[in-house]
Amino acid sequence: MAATRTQGPPRTRSGRADALFRRYRETRRLTEQFCEPLCAEDCVVQSMPDVSPTRWHLAHTTWFFERFVLSAFQPGYVTYDAAYEHLFNSYYNTVGTPFPRPQRGLLSRPTVAEVFEYRRAVDGRMERLFHQAANRRENRLLDVVEIGVHHEQQHQELMLTDIKHIFSCNPLLPAYHGTEPVAPAKAVPLIWHAVPEGVYEIGHRGRGFAYDNEGPRHRVFLEPFRIANRLVTNGEFRQFVEDDGYGRPELWLSLGWNRVQELDISAPFYWVRRGSRWHEYTLHGLEPLCDARPVCHVNYFEADAYARWAGHRLPTEFEWEIVAGEQPIAGNFVEQARLHPVAAESATGSGIMQLYGDTWEWTSSSYAPYPRYRPPAGAIGEYNGKFMCNQYVLRGGSCATSQTHVRPTYRNFFPPEAQWQFTGIRLAN
Amino acid sequence: MAATRTQGPPRTRSGRADALFRRYRETRRLTEQFCEPLCAEDCVVQSMPDVSPTRWHLAHTTWFFERFVLSAFQPGYVTYDAAYEHLFNSYYNTVGTPFPRPQRGLLSRPTVAEVFEYRRAVDGRMERLFHQAANRRENRLLDVVEIGVHHEQQHQELMLTDIKHIFSCNPLLPAYHGTEPVAPAKAVPLIWHAVPEGVYEIGHRGRGFAYDNEGPRHRVFLEPFRIANRLVTNGEFRQFVEDDGYGRPELWLSLGWNRVQELDISAPFYWVRRGSRWHEYTLHGLEPLCDARPVCHVNYFEADAYARWAGHRLPTEFEWEIVAGEQPIAGNFVEQARLHPVAAESATGSGIMQLYGDTWEWTSSSYAPYPRYRPPAGAIGEYNGKFMCNQYVLRGGSCATSQTHVRPTYRNFFPPEAQWQFTGIRLAN
Amino acid sequence: MAATRTQGPPRTRSGRADALFRRYRETRRLTEQFCEPLCAEDCVVQSMPDVSPTRWHLAHTTWFFERFVLSAFQPGYVTYDAAYEHLFNSYYNTVGTPFPRPQRGLLSRPTVAEVFEYRRAVDGRMERLFHQAANRRENRLLDVVEIGVHHEQQHQELMLTDIKHIFSCNPLLPAYHGTEPVAPAKAVPLIWHAVPEGVYEIGHRGRGFAYDNEGPRHRVFLEPFRIANRLVTNGEFRQFVEDDGYGRPELWLSLGWNRVQELDISAPFYWVRRGSRWHEYTLHGLEPLCDARPVCHVNYFEADAYARWAGHRLPTEFEWEIVAGEQPIAGNFVEQARLHPVAAESATGSGIMQLYGDTWEWTSSSYAPYPRYRPPAGAIGEYNGKFMCNQYVLRGGSCATSQTHVRPTYRNFFPPEAQWQFTGIRLAN
Amino acid sequence: MAATRTQGPPRTRSGRADALFRRYRETRRLTEQFCEPLCAEDCVVQSMPDVSPTRWHLAHTTWFFERFVLSAFQPGYVTYDAAYEHLFNSYYNTVGTPFPRPQRGLLSRPTVAEVFEYRRAVDGRMERLFHQAANRRENRLLDVVEIGVHHEQQHQELMLTDIKHIFSCNPLLPAYHGTEPVAPAKAVPLIWHAVPEGVYEIGHRGRGFAYDNEGPRHRVFLEPFRIANRLVTNGEFRQFVEDDGYGRPELWLSLGWNRVQELDISAPFYWVRRGSRWHEYTLHGLEPLCDARPVCHVNYFEADAYARWAGHRLPTEFEWEIVAGEQPIAGNFVEQARLHPVAAESATGSGIMQLYGDTWEWTSSSYAPYPRYRPPAGAIGEYNGKFMCNQYVLRGGSCATSQTHVRPTYRNFFPPEAQWQFTGIRLAN
Repeated sequence: MAATRTQGPPRTRSGRADALFRRYRETRRLTEQFCEPLCAEDCVVQSMPDVSPTRWHLAHTTWFFERFVLSAFQPGYVTYDAAYEHLFNSYYNTVGTPFPRPQRGLLSRPTVAEVFEYRRAVDGRMERLFHQAANRRENRLLDVVEIGVHHEQQHQELMLTDIKHIFSCNPLLPAYHGTEPVAPAKAVPLIWHAVPEGVYEIGHRGRGFAYDNEGPRHRVFLEPFRIANRLVTNGEFRQFVEDDGYGRPELWLSLGWNRVQELDISAPFYWVRRGSRWHEYTLHGLEPLCDARPVCHVNYFEADAYARWAGHRLPTEFEWEIVAGEQPIAGNFVEQARLHPVAAESATGSGIMQLYGDTWEWTSSSYAPYPRYRPPAGAIGEYNGKFMCNQYVLRGGSCATSQTHVRPTYRNFFPPEAQWQFTGIRLAN
Repeated sequence: MAATRTQGPPRTRSGRADALFRRYRETRRLTEQFCEPLCAEDCVVQSMPDVSPTRWHLAHTTWFFERFVLSAFQPGYVTYDAAYEHLFNSYYNTVGTPFPRPQRGLLSRPTVAEVFEYRRAVDGRMERLFHQAANRRENRLLDVVEIGVHHEQQHQELMLTDIKHIFSCNPLLPAYHGTEPVAPAKAVPLIWHAVPEGVYEIGHRGRGFAYDNEGPRHRVFLEPFRIANRLVTNGEFRQFVEDDGYGRPELWLSLGWNRVQELDISAPFYWVRRGSRWHEYTLHGLEPLCDARPVCHVNYFEADAYARWAGHRLPTEFEWEIVAGEQPIAGNFVEQARLHPVAAESATGSGIMQLYGDTWEWTSSSYAPYPRYRPPAGAIGEYNGKFMCNQYVLRGGSCATSQTHVRPTYRNFFPPEAQWQFTGIRLAN
Repeated sequence: MAATRTQGPPRTRSGRADALFRRYRETRRLTEQFCEPLCAEDCVVQSMPDVSPTRWHLAHTTWFFERFVLSAFQPGYVTYDAAYEHLFNSYYNTVGTPFPRPQRGLLSRPTVAEVFEYRRAVDGRMERLFHQAANRRENRLLDVVEIGVHHEQQHQELMLTDIKHIFSCNPLLPAYHGTEPVAPAKAVPLIWHAVPEGVYEIGHRGRGFAYDNEGPRHRVFLEPFRIANRLVTNGEFRQFVEDDGYGRPELWLSLGWNRVQELDISAPFYWVRRGSRWHEYTLHGLEPLCDARPVCHVNYFEADAYARWAGHRLPTEFEWEIVAGEQPIAGNFVEQARLHPVAAESATGSGIMQLYGDTWEWTSSSYAPYPRYRPPAGAIGEYNGKFMCNQYVLRGGSCATSQTHVRPTYRNFFPPEAQWQFTGIRLAN
Repeated sequence: MAATRTQGPPRTRSGRADALFRRYRETRRLTEQFCEPLCAEDCVVQSMPDVSPTRWHLAHTTWFFERFVLSAFQPGYVTYDAAYEHLFNSYYNTVGTPFPRPQRGLLSRPTVAEVFEYRRAVDGRMERLFHQAANRRENRLLDVVEIGVHHEQQHQELMLTDIKHIFSCNPLLPAYHGTEPVAPAKAVPLIWHAVPEGVYEIGHRGRGFAYDNEGPRHRVFLEPFRIANRLVTNGEFRQFVEDDGYGRPELWLSLGWNRVQELDISAPFYWVRRGSRWHEYTLHGLEPLCDARPVCHVNYFEADAYARWAGHRLPTEFEWEIVAGEQPIAGNFVEQARLHPVAAESATGSGIMQLYGDTWEWTSSSYAPYPRYRPPAGAIGEYNGKFMCNQYVLRGGSCATSQTHVRPTYRNFFPPEAQWQFTGIRLAN
C-alpha cells in the first residue's frame, strides 16, 4: 500500500507531531505484544509464499521507517546493517532488490532477539529524529511516519493471519491465544436495506489520513440497490455446502470451478470434518463450528458462488461505501481481543450490523484506480498502484484489524483465490 | 460467450428466418474458406492451451448447432456420433463433460475430411429443420441459430489467430496467406478528442442481435476525459522499447513486471530481431517492422506500461463506448483480407480513426457484469457470465473480425497476459 | 544409440557394399510401409515428450544419412534444406543445436508429403554416392551406413509404440492395424532353468554388426542362478493386481511407490476396466484381456514389484545374456505382423521360450559402460554412452522389433518409469 | 538404511550390552553437542525437500528408538506423544503414515526445548529397559539398538550437511563453527596404484556390525585397473572449470548436461565468485578457495564429467572396496572437528591417501542389491532395500562422518544430482 494526501486536522504542527509520535510508540509496542504467545521457532516458518514469518514482519516494518524516514530525512544517516536493506525490502524495486518473497522462510538469521534489538535501535533513532525541532514541523516527514504507522498496523493483521495459517499446517493445531470467545447467540434475521439510485460521491474527503488509493474523490452513478443487514453466517453457508454447492458448476465462476476441481475443495479453508460434525480451526484452536457466527476465510469464488446460490450477489465497493459512510466505525476489532468473528446481536436494533470489524467483506469490484488517480512519486508510489490488476476490493476491516486503522473509504484488496485473511460475505441485490 | 435478447427488426418472422438462414450458410462457407491455405497437418497442432487446432474449431462450431439447435428442437434427434458429444464440447459443464482443453492437440481423429463430412451432415439437417414451416416461426429456435452464427464468427477469428500462433512456433515461419498489404503511409499525428462529464447510457439497446453481456442498458457517470484519434503505432512503441521500457519496474503493474522478469521479455510477442532491425511475424510471413502501422499483439500489461510511460492511460470501456457509439462501423476488417492492421490514413480527416477493425483495444475495465445482469438459463448461460473474473475488456474488433460481428456495445475479454489476438492500444487521459 | 566395431564377414568389400545397400533399400521401404495405415493428421501428434510424431521419425532417420553419410563423405555436398539441420537433429549437440524434443508436435511443416520427398531425394543421393566405386571400398562409410540402417530399425519400432501411445490418448481408441492375432492357448507351466556359477564372457564378439555399448567383451563372475522358461502372463499379473499389489508399499521400490501414489496407478498402462472385465488397448484396438498372453507395457517398478510379490527377482543382464546366447534368434517379431505379444506355446518343448521377440525383458541391471568402454570419437559417440545413467537394460526385442535387429548381446535401455514400449517380465532367482 | 547380520564379537552377551549402551549414551550426547552452535530459529528451517530441520533430526532419531525398541520390546509400552508417531516417522510405510517430507519445515511445534525433553524421556526409558537383566541377553533387542546407534550417526552427518545448506541460502552466510582449519599444503602428486585382474570377494564378512545392504558377501570378477592415490583437488577442478568444462556437452552424461543447461550451472555448488577470485562456502563461513584441498560438494554428473575431461573414469564400488580393504580406517573424520576436507599430506608416504574421511567418493556403481540379498522382514526392511534405484554408491566417509561409523564395505548412496553432502572424486582407469 502507499501514499497519503493528509491535510492535518486543525491543530498546530507540533501538536500533530506529538500525537503522531505517541501513536508511533503505541503501534510499535502493540506489534511486539502480538508476539508474546509465540516462541522463537514459531517466528521462522513460512507456510506458503503469501505468508511471511513473524521475524520478517518485525524486521520489515522497522526497515520501512529506517528506509523511508531515517535514510531520507537524517543527513548522513548510516544504515543499521547493510544486509537488512536487501533482506527486509518487501517489493520496492526502486530502492533496491527485494529478497525473494517465497524464500523468507529459509532465513533463521538475524534471530528473533537480533530483530528485537534492531527494532529498539531504530525506535531510538526515530525518537532522536523526532525530537529535533525542525523535523517536528516538517510535514513531508510527518506524512511518511504516518504512512509507516498505518503500514505497521497492516502488518499486525498479517502477523495474526499468517501465524494462524502456519499453525494450521501443523497436525498439532496449536492455539495462538487461550481465551475462548463468548458463546454465540442465534443468528439475527436477514433484512434488506434499500438505497435509491443517484450520483454519489466516492473516496476520501479532505480531513485525516487515507491511502492514495482512496482518492481522488469522484462521482459515480448507482442504480437502486439493496444490501443485507448482516454478514452471511456459518449456518447459512453450511446449507450451501449441504446442498452440494461445491459440486454444481453452474454456481461458480469458471476460474473458481477449476480451482474447486483441481484442489478437490468441499468446504471453507479452515473447516475440518471430525466424525459427523464440522469444526473450525481458530486462533483458539479447533472448535465446533458455530452456526450463528459469520462464515470466514472464504475466497472471492466461494463468496460469489454462495451469493448466486442464494439468489443474490455481492455488493460493489461503491454500494458498500455509500452505506458504510453513514455508520459509526465500531465493531469486533483486534482491540476486543476476540480474534474471531462473533455473531451479530439483535440488540443492535434494526440497523446495519457488522459493516466494520468481524470479517473483511468481498465486493464484486475489481481493484482499479479511481478517475485521475496518480500514484505518488518515488518508492512510496509502489505501495498501492502497481497492484491494481486481478485483485478484488474488500471493505470494513476484521477482528484482526485495528479500529484506528479503518475508514469508510478504506480499500483492502486480494486476489480472488486468497482466503487466509478473515474474509466474509455480505449480500446485495 | 452467450445468450441474446434480440427483438427482431420490423419484418415478418418468416423474413427473419430467411435472412438468418442465408447468413447461416454464408458463415458456414466462410469458415471453410479460411481453411483453404491449410493442409491437413496444419489443422491438428495445438501450440498452447489457449490455442485450438483448426480441426477442433471446424467441429466445435458444428457441435454447437447440433447440440443447441438440432438436439433441442428436432424431436427424436439421433446424434451424428455419440463420441463427438464429449470431444467437441468446449466448456459447457451443464450438457456433459468437456474433453480437456489442453489435450485437443493430442487428437488426430476424426480426420479433417471426416470433420468436413460432419459439417455437411449437420448443415443438411439444419436445412431440413429450417424448412419446416413451424420452425421458421419459432423465435426461440431462431434466437439460438443467431447465437450460433455469431459464435461461429468468433471462432473464425480464433482460427486465424490460432494458426498464426501455431506457425510462429515453427522455425520455418510459414505464411498463411501470400498477399502483402499495401505499403503504409507515415503515421498521422496524435490528436486528443475531449468528452464532457455526465451521466451516460451504456449497453445494448433494443434492436438487433447482441450478447447477453452487453446488457442491461444502464447509466454510468463519467468524469470529463480525452481520447486519442488513432491507435498507438509500432514506431511509438519502438521508442518505449528503446527507452528501456521493459527494464523499468516503475512503469509496470506488479504482475506484469513479474512476467517480464520471469520470461525475460523485451518486445511485443511477434517482434523478432534480425541483425540491427526489428521484424514482425505476420500471417504473410516475417516482415520488416513498419513504424506507421498500429502496434499489435501486446498484452494488457504492455498496453498499460506503454500508456504510463507516455504519461497517459487506457480508456475505460465506458469511455470507449460513448465515443464509438457516434462512429460508423467501418474499418480494416477480415472482409478486407489484409489480415494485419494498417496505418491510419490522414485522408480520414480530423475524426477518430481505427475504432473499429485493425486491433482490439485494451480498456482498463475489468470484465464484470452490468447492473441487474443475469445469465440466461441453461447451458447458454455458460457462454459469458462465468468468465467475469480476472479478465479485461477489449473493444472494436480487429483485422481478423467480421464487420458484421461487431457493435459499439460489443465486449470482448481476455486475461491480462493474453496476446495472441490482434490486440492494440488507444490512449486516453 | 551409436558406433560399431564391425569386422566384416568373410566376403569381398564390394560384396559387403552390395548387401548393405540392399538392406538400406529394404529398411527404408519398410519404414514407409509402416505409415500406410496412417493419415496425415496421425503423423503430426506428439502425445508426450518421449513420443515423437511419425513425420519426425520419417525425417530424422533421413537426416541421419544426410548428416553422417552424405555431408561427411560427399565432397562439396549441399544440404537438401538448411532448416532441416536444426529441425531433425534429435540430440547430437556436437553437430548443431537440436530442436527441442518436447516441441516436435508443434510443427506441421514440412508436411508429410514434403518429408516423403525429402526421403526420396536423400535415397537418390545415397544411391549415387554408393555407386561410386571408391565409396564401395570405403569401410568407414559402410560402417556409418550400417549404423544408419540399424538406427532406422530402432525408429521403426518407436513409430509403432509412439502411434500406439498417440491413439491411446484419443477416446475413439483407433486401431492401427485391423488383423486380430490368433486366439491364444492356455499358458504353459512356469519351469526354472538352472545355470551354475562361474566366470562368463559377456559382450559382442568379433563378427557382424553390434553397437558400441555391447562391448568390449569382458568377463563377469556369476553366482549360480535359475531363470524362468517363459514370460510372466497377463493372468499371473492379474493375480498381483487382485492381491492389492498396487496398494502394498512393502512390494515396491521407493520411487515406484511414490509414482503409484501420485498418479493413482492400479494396473498396467494400457489396461482398461470396462464393467467387471479387464481389457487391453492394442494396435488392433481395445480387446478383452487374454490371460495366457505375456503381460506388457509394465515399467521397471511394476516388473520389480511383481517379482518381489512372486517371491523371485528380475535377472541381471548378464544372466540373461548367458542363457540367450545358446538360443536361436527366433520368435514373435515385427516380421510376423502380429504387433502384440502372443502366448508361449507348449509345442516349443521343454526349452526356454520367448527370449526373443514378444516383449523386451526388464533386467535388474542399471545401464552402465562395460569395462574399458570408450564411446567412439565425434557425433556418433553421442549415440549411446551419454545415456548411461538412471536407465535400466532391457533384452531380447519385442513384437515390434525386426528379427534382423536383435542379438544376444543387444542392450536396450529405458528409464524405470518408461512403459510405452512393449516391455515385459521374466523371473529369476 | 536398515537391518544387520551382526554376529557378536567373542565376548559375553552382557559385555556386548554394556558396550552398546555406553555407545548409545555417547552417540546421543554427541548429537546434542552438534546443536550447541545453533539457536532455536536455526533448528526450524528446511531449505529444500532433501534437507530436514535440526529439530526434526533430534526428534526422528529419538522416535526410532521409541518405535523400534521401546514399543517392540517393552510390554504395555505407552507412547510419549501419539502425534509424534506421525510427525517423526521418516519413510516407514509399514508402521504408519509418515508426515510429508517436504513439509517438515512448516512445523514450529514441538519446540526445540520440547524435543530435548522428548529425548531425555526416551533416554530414561531406554536406560530402564536396558537395565532389565533379560533384555541385556536379548540379541534381537541389542541388534535393533545397534542399528539405532548407527542410524543416529547417519543423522549426525545430515545435521551438519543440512545446516550448511540452510545457512548457504541466507545472504548473511553465517558460520556454524568458528575455528578455521590449518593452512593447507601444496597438493601431493597424483600417482596410480595398479590392481591385477581376478575373482574377488565383496561385502561384509562375519564380525562386527554392518548394514544389510553390505551383504551377502559374494564374488565378483574384476578386470585389471588402476586407482589414484588421492582425491581430486580444487586446483585440478578449477582447471576443468577454466577449460569450459561446464560448456562442452561431449563431457557430460545427457541428464547432467540437461541439468547444467536448465539451472545454468558453471561451478561446484558452494563455489562463489567474488571479483576475480573463487571462494567456497564452508561451515566456517565464506573462504577463498584453496587449491590443495579436495574438491567437494560435486554431484555425480560433475564427478563423471571431470573424470572424462581428465581422460580417466570413476572407480566401481568393487574396485574401491578391494583397495580400501587393505587400508586402516583413519583420516579426517568428524572427530577431528575440522568439518571440511583437508589437503592430502605427502608425509603419508607412497600409499593411498584419503580413502577414509575428507569426502565421500562417487563410484560409477548404481546402487543395487548384492546377489541373494533379501531385505529383513518388517519395518527395518524399509531401511535400505527400497532405495535401490536411480542412486549411485559412495564410499569412504567424510569430514562429517564418525570414524566409528565407517567400514571398507560401507555403502552410502545418493541420486546423481545430490551434492549437499561432502562428496568428492577419486579417479581410476
